[in-house]
Amino acid sequence: MTLKQLAKELNLSFSTVSKALRDSHEISAATKSRVLAKAKALNYQVNPLASSFRKQKSKTIAVIIPEVVNDFFGPVISGIESIAQQKGYHVLIYLTHEDVEREIAITQVLQNGRVDGVLISLSEQTTDTTHLDNVRQKEIPVVYFDRIVENTDAPKVTTDDYCSGFNATEHLIQHGCKRIAFLSISQNLSISHKRLKGYEDALNKNGIKVHTNLIISCERDDEKCAATIRKLLKQKNRPDAIFAAVEKLALKTYEICHELKLNIPTDVKVITFSNSYTAALLNPSLTTITQPAFEMGNEAATILFKMIEKKGYQSMKEATTLASQLIVRSSTK
Amino acid sequence: MTLKQLAKELNLSFSTVSKALRDSHEISAATKSRVLAKAKALNYQVNPLASSFRKQKSKTIAVIIPEVVNDFFGPVISGIESIAQQKGYHVLIYLTHEDVEREIAITQVLQNGRVDGVLISLSEQTTDTTHLDNVRQKEIPVVYFDRIVENTDAPKVTTDDYCSGFNATEHLIQHGCKRIAFLSISQNLSISHKRLKGYEDALNKNGIKVHTNLIISCERDDEKCAATIRKLLKQKNRPDAIFAAVEKLALKTYEICHELKLNIPTDVKVITFSNSYTAALLNPSLTTITQPAFEMGNEAATILFKMIEKKGYQSMKEATTLASQLIVRSSTK
Repeated sequence: MTLKQLAKELNLSFSTVSKALRDSHEISAATKSRVLAKAKALNYQVNPLASSFRKQKSKTIAVIIPEVVNDFFGPVISGIESIAQQKGYHVLIYLTHEDVEREIAITQVLQNGRVDGVLISLSEQTTDTTHLDNVRQKEIPVVYFDRIVENTDAPKVTTDDYCSGFNATEHLIQHGCKRIAFLSISQNLSISHKRLKGYEDALNKNGIKVHTNLIISCERDDEKCAATIRKLLKQKNRPDAIFAAVEKLALKTYEICHELKLNIPTDVKVITFSNSYTAALLNPSLTTITQPAFEMGNEAATILFKMIEKKGYQSMKEATTLASQLIVRSSTK
Repeated sequence: MTLKQLAKELNLSFSTVSKALRDSHEISAATKSRVLAKAKALNYQVNPLASSFRKQKSKTIAVIIPEVVNDFFGPVISGIESIAQQKGYHVLIYLTHEDVEREIAITQVLQNGRVDGVLISLSEQTTDTTHLDNVRQKEIPVVYFDRIVENTDAPKVTTDDYCSGFNATEHLIQHGCKRIAFLSISQNLSISHKRLKGYEDALNKNGIKVHTNLIISCERDDEKCAATIRKLLKQKNRPDAIFAAVEKLALKTYEICHELKLNIPTDVKVITFSNSYTAALLNPSLTTITQPAFEMGNEAATILFKMIEKKGYQSMKEATTLASQLIVRSSTK
């Protein structure tokens, strides 16, 4: 399949198709997406010469994350940017807003030589990563961080989600909790999976039955999420502890406990993954598992630049695990 | 001054100088900065043809901010990015870490056609904006937001810092406060200036003398900043309220009050500018002036795209002011 054949199939001029593939501003968005769709369907490969031209470094990397209104991704960006500045690289930021279609659209745009490498933390909807495999096939290295897929040989940087889930649960058990609810946002996410597995294994090890009705996936919608937690805490046999896989759910639990006049930690203990510097000042102060977010960004960027600078980047398949820290405060005492 | 003359002055080849000015990866950082310095000293202007070539849109904008580990700049980025995605634009992020030298270096790199426009919130060290005027002279539009300079005819988007400062101070006076301290991070910043002016005017209007020893500029260093607040709150005639121009200083005040066993709000009332969603859950809950951060990013990006899309962009000089919201909670009751 040549560019000429592709143009013929599309009934467009050679020049239009060529410009569309190079993401030229002269071509409408509608035409571009038509061209991209057809190119994909016919498995059209950019010709090797054009591709070698592309290998002139753009000196730019892309960071694709779900959101930035969040105490975690802020320091991650800072960690990435500090390495990029050292290397004289520019950093493009893309937010998926947890939308896999948007994530796919972003990765398509990045295949035209705009970037030399990609750092990504997946959206909660993403289960298949063909779109990122396509980026890698164009010899643009990809490093996954935090929210990853297991079934790829691309490098991955995560924190010890399983161990953290296990330790947080044992901490609650040691403080007398027997009915521990596990709240997460999406069962798709690698981080939710591993944190949940740690939770289940800690219960089993301590002879506590795993109740599936205490494992709850909360809705994104704020009101629905509040309703779910309210229902959980209003039931007769309510949990004596909440283990929140993300901070947002712990803060929502604080609000609902306040509303229902439940005392934290006497009635309900609360523990969460969180990077918020205000956790210590909450009422009561919140026990957290804190991820090394800045270091994660730093590490992921360091690996990416090794891949960009070396030719043999495809041989890098390492999985790096950074340790999180359990910080015990009043909410579990 | 032509490129040829510039090369001669530098005793470098035409090609090296040309590549250096285009930020090519083939040229060392040292040579690039030498070339840039000389070009600046000799007031070398990129030739008009090259400049018109540059006008092929890069479909990229740059966002220059002091930091991202912060509840304010996160939603600002989100607001900018939502407009950029609609327009099919890419977003580069640069962090100055409050360092004016870094800010200048970043703006120099952006003059080579890498971006079609710049959004900037100034570092706390920035008093002169020649580096941004240079960007604008290359016909790359610049929009200032939040931390701005007054003496420019570039568009500016801010919140009503003066009114917010005035209202916050009157709120404290109405709750019986007579010795209100004003804490800020840098006296350079436009936002600090205006918030302080609002504070002073509210005191004057209510017949309270302005004490310059209650107007305090805190250090960036965490320990030094804590020492300053500790000293303030340990003095005999200590303030009965703290008005913090940034959230970090309010949280530090909480810590020091806890340490000194001072009750908030009985001994000391606290009010601050803050966008943190945890303010309501602090102990005690924190009265805040909350800026519309997402909307600010949105508005600044909207103006920038108008300038990029229109030829007559230099005529846009508007100053847009968005309203902040005073949210009264327990820390001032």
